[in-house]
Amino acid sequence: MMAGVNADVQRLARQGLPEVVYAAGKTVAQVQAAVSALHAANGCVLATRVSPAVAAVLSTEGAVYDEISQVWSRGALPQMAEVAPVAVICAGTSDLPVAEEAARVLEFGGVEVLRVVDVGVAGLHRLLKRVEEIQRCSVVIVVAGMDGALPSVVGGLVRQPVIAVPTSVGYGASLQGIAALLTMLNSCAAGLAVVNIDNGFGAAVHALRILLGQGILK
Amino acid sequence: MMAGVNADVQRLARQGLPEVVYAAGKTVAQVQAAVSALHAANGCVLATRVSPAVAAVLSTEGAVYDEISQVWSRGALPQMAEVAPVAVICAGTSDLPVAEEAARVLEFGGVEVLRVVDVGVAGLHRLLKRVEEIQRCSVVIVVAGMDGALPSVVGGLVRQPVIAVPTSVGYGASLQGIAALLTMLNSCAAGLAVVNIDNGFGAAVHALRILLGQGILK
Amino acid sequence: MMAGVNADVQRLARQGLPEVVYAAGKTVAQVQAAVSALHAANGCVLATRVSPAVAAVLSTEGAVYDEISQVWSRGALPQMAEVAPVAVICAGTSDLPVAEEAARVLEFGGVEVLRVVDVGVAGLHRLLKRVEEIQRCSVVIVVAGMDGALPSVVGGLVRQPVIAVPTSVGYGASLQGIAALLTMLNSCAAGLAVVNIDNGFGAAVHALRILLGQGILK
Amino acid sequence: MMAGVNADVQRLARQGLPEVVYAAGKTVAQVQAAVSALHAANGCVLATRVSPAVAAVLSTEGAVYDEISQVWSRGALPQMAEVAPVAVICAGTSDLPVAEEAARVLEFGGVEVLRVVDVGVAGLHRLLKRVEEIQRCSVVIVVAGMDGALPSVVGGLVRQPVIAVPTSVGYGASLQGIAALLTMLNSCAAGLAVVNIDNGFGAAVHALRILLGQGILK
Amino acid sequence: MMAGVNADVQRLARQGLPEVVYAAGKTVAQVQAAVSALHAANGCVLATRVSPAVAAVLSTEGAVYDEISQVWSRGALPQMAEVAPVAVICAGTSDLPVAEEAARVLEFGGVEVLRVVDVGVAGLHRLLKRVEEIQRCSVVIVVAGMDGALPSVVGGLVRQPVIAVPTSVGYGASLQGIAALLTMLNSCAAGLAVVNIDNGFGAAVHALRILLGQGILK
Amino acid sequence: MMAGVNADVQRLARQGLPEVVYAAGKTVAQVQAAVSALHAANGCVLATRVSPAVAAVLSTEGAVYDEISQVWSRGALPQMAEVAPVAVICAGTSDLPVAEEAARVLEFGGVEVLRVVDVGVAGLHRLLKRVEEIQRCSVVIVVAGMDGALPSVVGGLVRQPVIAVPTSVGYGASLQGIAALLTMLNSCAAGLAVVNIDNGFGAAVHALRILLGQGILK
Amino acid sequence: MMAGVNADVQRLARQGLPEVVYAAGKTVAQVQAAVSALHAANGCVLATRVSPAVAAVLSTEGAVYDEISQVWSRGALPQMAEVAPVAVICAGTSDLPVAEEAARVLEFGGVEVLRVVDVGVAGLHRLLKRVEEIQRCSVVIVVAGMDGALPSVVGGLVRQPVIAVPTSVGYGASLQGIAALLTMLNSCAAGLAVVNIDNGFGAAVHALRILLGQGILK
Amino acid sequence: MMAGVNADVQRLARQGLPEVVYAAGKTVAQVQAAVSALHAANGCVLATRVSPAVAAVLSTEGAVYDEISQVWSRGALPQMAEVAPVAVICAGTSDLPVAEEAARVLEFGGVEVLRVVDVGVAGLHRLLKRVEEIQRCSVVIVVAGMDGALPSVVGGLVRQPVIAVPTSVGYGASLQGIAALLTMLNSCAAGLAVVNIDNGFGAAVHALRILLGQGILK
Repeated sequence: MMAGVNADVQRLARQGLPEVVYAAGKTVAQVQAAVSALHAANGCVLATRVSPAVAAVLSTEGAVYDEISQVWSRGALPQMAEVAPVAVICAGTSDLPVAEEAARVLEFGGVEVLRVVDVGVAGLHRLLKRVEEIQRCSVVIVVAGMDGALPSVVGGLVRQPVIAVPTSVGYGASLQGIAALLTMLNSCAAGLAVVNIDNGFGAAVHALRILLGQGILK
Repeated sequence: MMAGVNADVQRLARQGLPEVVYAAGKTVAQVQAAVSALHAANGCVLATRVSPAVAAVLSTEGAVYDEISQVWSRGALPQMAEVAPVAVICAGTSDLPVAEEAARVLEFGGVEVLRVVDVGVAGLHRLLKRVEEIQRCSVVIVVAGMDGALPSVVGGLVRQPVIAVPTSVGYGASLQGIAALLTMLNSCAAGLAVVNIDNGFGAAVHALRILLGQGILK
Repeated sequence: MMAGVNADVQRLARQGLPEVVYAAGKTVAQVQAAVSALHAANGCVLATRVSPAVAAVLSTEGAVYDEISQVWSRGALPQMAEVAPVAVICAGTSDLPVAEEAARVLEFGGVEVLRVVDVGVAGLHRLLKRVEEIQRCSVVIVVAGMDGALPSVVGGLVRQPVIAVPTSVGYGASLQGIAALLTMLNSCAAGLAVVNIDNGFGAAVHALRILLGQGILK
Repeated sequence: MMAGVNADVQRLARQGLPEVVYAAGKTVAQVQAAVSALHAANGCVLATRVSPAVAAVLSTEGAVYDEISQVWSRGALPQMAEVAPVAVICAGTSDLPVAEEAARVLEFGGVEVLRVVDVGVAGLHRLLKRVEEIQRCSVVIVVAGMDGALPSVVGGLVRQPVIAVPTSVGYGASLQGIAALLTMLNSCAAGLAVVNIDNGFGAAVHALRILLGQGILK
Repeated sequence: MMAGVNADVQRLARQGLPEVVYAAGKTVAQVQAAVSALHAANGCVLATRVSPAVAAVLSTEGAVYDEISQVWSRGALPQMAEVAPVAVICAGTSDLPVAEEAARVLEFGGVEVLRVVDVGVAGLHRLLKRVEEIQRCSVVIVVAGMDGALPSVVGGLVRQPVIAVPTSVGYGASLQGIAALLTMLNSCAAGLAVVNIDNGFGAAVHALRILLGQGILK
Repeated sequence: MMAGVNADVQRLARQGLPEVVYAAGKTVAQVQAAVSALHAANGCVLATRVSPAVAAVLSTEGAVYDEISQVWSRGALPQMAEVAPVAVICAGTSDLPVAEEAARVLEFGGVEVLRVVDVGVAGLHRLLKRVEEIQRCSVVIVVAGMDGALPSVVGGLVRQPVIAVPTSVGYGASLQGIAALLTMLNSCAAGLAVVNIDNGFGAAVHALRILLGQGILK
Repeated sequence: MMAGVNADVQRLARQGLPEVVYAAGKTVAQVQAAVSALHAANGCVLATRVSPAVAAVLSTEGAVYDEISQVWSRGALPQMAEVAPVAVICAGTSDLPVAEEAARVLEFGGVEVLRVVDVGVAGLHRLLKRVEEIQRCSVVIVVAGMDGALPSVVGGLVRQPVIAVPTSVGYGASLQGIAALLTMLNSCAAGLAVVNIDNGFGAAVHALRILLGQGILK
Repeated sequence: MMAGVNADVQRLARQGLPEVVYAAGKTVAQVQAAVSALHAANGCVLATRVSPAVAAVLSTEGAVYDEISQVWSRGALPQMAEVAPVAVICAGTSDLPVAEEAARVLEFGGVEVLRVVDVGVAGLHRLLKRVEEIQRCSVVIVVAGMDGALPSVVGGLVRQPVIAVPTSVGYGASLQGIAALLTMLNSCAAGLAVVNIDNGFGAAVHALRILLGQGILK
């Protein structure tokens, strides 16, 4: 039979960030094997989409599990001491799991996070009173489902790179997040970049790539 | 052969608004026949999606044609004297044809229009300084392509009925207006109603139905 | 961790209608917190998409829960004394949950409702004998799944603003309500406005915005 | 090089109806070859989707060409003397080309046609006053674009087999006829059968198969 | 609260076929009420999409329930004595539930059925040896999932009206039956008519409308 | 400015087949540069999707251009002397351009072609009388638009590898070839492999890869 | 009632490969009947998509069941002694079930398999160090979900026929494998052929058709 | 009539980048007005999607127009002296217009560009020999149509932020760039961010936002 899980233990050296275990669709044994190999190689490890049942099995000294975001981690990369926090903004309460996935991956990567919750565009005043705080961040991640309109508004209010994360929150014509994804790809605010639906992890890694590159001057 | 164009000349009496001629996909002769029959019956007539070539043929005393919106009209319904204007707001310059179609249908229906142009959400300050004016209107029509985010923002700023009109402005993942349509259907601002892509006419008629109903009290 | 639920307790003052709690995708604790905050601020509160399990937890003196529509409410806004009822019409028995969601939100908003059930276009006589009653209403909400044809027919029979609500009732090529949604967006009856699939709540709020605006004259 | 056009000259004997030439996407030479072979074999021939330019080349004694439907024919099958007419009903003027394609294929097949034009559901009275006439027909073909709602209404008013033909008439969310197609497939009137968008020809052939089968008793 | 189920007890008189109860999405009480009202009015009744649990509740003297097709019936219309059987053909074993739904509705309508099972086009010899039998039928219903190719092949082998029923059998790019539906709508065999995915009931009713119309001569 | 066209002149050595120029979307100068570089390197060159205008510019001694398939070539690879021909089968006359593209790429690759034209499944007898000839080929390419049903039928009649090519022939629900593509991906004949819509070239290269591999034994 | 399962016991003689039982959507009794009939006729039998529960029922002497791929088999065809192995390559651990389905069908067909696991393009070095081994195979099957990019890369590195299998692995915009399917159909590596999403079986049969044809020379 | 073009002349001060004129869908007069207002305010201006005809009208001293990318500019922002170049990589010749749009917007923004052309994954060696050069850049933009696989491969080879731009290059199942877009959204290389189809402009602005933020430390 086919052998599985061929963890890329050298990715930290090659790319500055270690491989992260995507637990969905893997057996518990596969997750455990990958987690062990990566922790052994890198001294820290993070896994996403970890169900409570799998987290219970992985549970070990020093491990942290967050049920909302289904992120499991053990250890972390060293803090990037001089980097301003990344803002993680979300439109509604139901977007929290995705926003928190992004936040925890950022913290694992050594970056501070400014969480801004429940500031959907239907009540603009809630966002407007947080703008200055957000403008002091290094990168801005905006998480929204349903109409996905929040990143366009934020994109017009800040100069930072904005990463938009559509979520599958909604029903009917939200098409499991396709509506929000399309909104963000068509944003009238220039320079937004978009990741897959519910992909808080990907947004965080894009931000980490940006922050790791702060030193890449001529 | 099949005979065509069976104009509904009694719709004014039945519904308070006369039939309007949709010129796209009709021959010049069919448009002309419908326009004549409706003018004879109602004393006024309006046609939408009239190409300049067809407009040239229709040209007659008292007719007005607007090339941007492709609306052609002759005469109008009596002014609704006591009704506040309808706001017609559009996100970008390219949305003007659809917004103007709505505006001209409203004016034909006897209602004043407040035009608010180029107030897309990527530059929120442009919209915010017009809000009070908009809040004094009776109904608000919001026209937007690309991300279609403007109606959600407007919907949270006013108490009036908001009618959202997606446009086919954009490219790639805008899918000829489907992206904007989905955004609007999933709006996080409660109580938005949506019409077909580029359907400025339909939005105006929904507004006219609302305003004609002002007297329907118990 | 991210804190959640940031209820918009001033929306009643700002928009004439209080925020409504959308319970789907929220934890019981989040629903309860939002419900309490809004009741404290406004003296009444309504929640939609409340499962029987959550309703049992919310249960309190004066609360009403309807299992069909999954609407939970406590108190209501004052009656709009002089406004004619809103007609809520539905095509088939399976559309009842969505129609009843609309009806209960309207009643919470202080408006009387005329319910007209099971009048699908395949048996036109059932609708035709109710038309006069419907014509005496202030606004008409039409709920239909499958072919979604009913709003087009109603739209041609009345002069009121018609709000069309597609439902996810059907199978196969109904595409979970997309077919009915498209039908309604393409209605040959002018002036129909459409809300998201199964969004009885949104249709009711659009109607309430119309009725609250009855006084907006010049 | 590949040789083309391999006309099925024995189909008349095998199926009771001769092969018909679909001219779109064929070169003039290919159309001409097919038309000649079929006329020689069957004594009559019909071609659909014939552009005026191609029709001019095909022009010959006894040939008839209709520009609206783009149907070209020479001769016809013998009349089915005892069969009641087929009703061909269309919702709007823009649906005429498709309706007329169906009508001309039926007449070529030896069946009388009752044409009923411009009876869309937004003005129901126009349809209702033609119902008795339609009920005396053998088969009913209903052609409609935009919301595609007409076949559902007709299907509830008659007992005959109803064949629904969606057209690509409309814009935006009509998706080139997909909206009307979906409406018809989800009709709440039982027993409707549907053909491809703009396929007046296919509807007519289904009707002819029904009428040719009148004698298939035990 | 809204009252439900408004059974159309006069449909038998009006259309020659009684209303049939579609049980999916209805409560047991709603199904029972409809079944009783229709049996009282017509002396026979049929329900589709009846789960075994609901069937157990409906169980009464003279009722028949088939688990494969989920059809429940009590009594039947009188036999159409002189009509040749309808062929119900299916491509694979997994299409049986849909084919059997069609067969049982036909038998309820008083028509004999010729069942032809498991004759998919990948093993053409299985179909070819049944062709003559099929050619002696009055109408041909062809049920197929996956590639949906069978109706095109059958349509070229018989002269009867062919009704194609796509099923949701398949996976991946079958898109829950959309692939088979599109195949059938684009059939190169002229005169095929198509019903919704898994709609064995609709195909049977179209066939019954054809057979009831055998007498509609001039 | 960006320089273009970086022809892969070593592909012949690396993969056994030279790079082929895809002319659509390239400027005449880009096509000419690629053609020259590849001819210089390999002694032969082929270009696909060459419009007559571009072909006129490329015209040179020894070049061959076919207007139907829009294939332009100069020279060819050596004949594979012992390999049986590849069958290229197409359903209808309108599929010829795609089938001929496949055929000419195969001939350029040194393989003989058996062309079988106009054998769509609606007239099965046409295909059945060619089956033995096809069974003597090495590989079978089947080209079909509309319902795309032909490859399923062929796949059940032969033992060879069958490569299915959907074409964009059709209208309405053919969705520019998506319908035929889905049919082929869902074929009930096991072992069919599919290429992109209208991709005669890709089918031919897959066949050439198979035939070049004849010697890859242990 | 309709009888089911009409196993094609002569397919081995006709096509060189026996019919395989697709167990999904069949009752246990139907699977058992088909398995018995095919084993009796051919001396070996294979079934795919067999759930553990069904496998337990089928369990018999000499039967082998693999839970990962859900393949059940008893016996096998004779080994093709001189044929080089088929490479079955997969991008990630979650693609293993589909890859293993392909591998087991190949082994049942008498062909050796080279399994290459977890070589996704995001860590190209893992693939590059296996390339020479893969180049010594007869046919290459590449299985990938999410972006589906692996087959394009492999297709450029080998000269063999490459069969691409998209999997439903992924979330959000992967659209249950549609994204990977589209990637593969649009591959810039010429000569890739594609099968349905998750169809490891179909890829294996296409490979077996190729290998069985090794002797088809002129 | 509605007045148009309300250029946001203060965006440079607010966001660090001036408004850019999107010329598609605007009249020549509207483009000219916007260009003049922005040049007057900022001392430099850039317009995208400028057809040659419009460029001819805009032509003025110091203006530069590139026909391939349809970018028109006059002046530029000051050079960012210490920033490493941005790599703009494209898969094929047909992707050049989009890649060059990105490159010219970057140069207008004061950043040097490393152009890497025609390095599609089907000939991996072409990319591999440019990798070190790319690794010395600050940000990496990857432009690809058809399968859109290049960004996944690049994303695994570099540590920089990677911005993926799908193009509408391709045919059939490329769905005008949707296939490439989906590939990129599902990339197995972590941390890719994606912009709209053909949106070279947006990718460049995201890169500029990143580079402008180099100084945002705590």
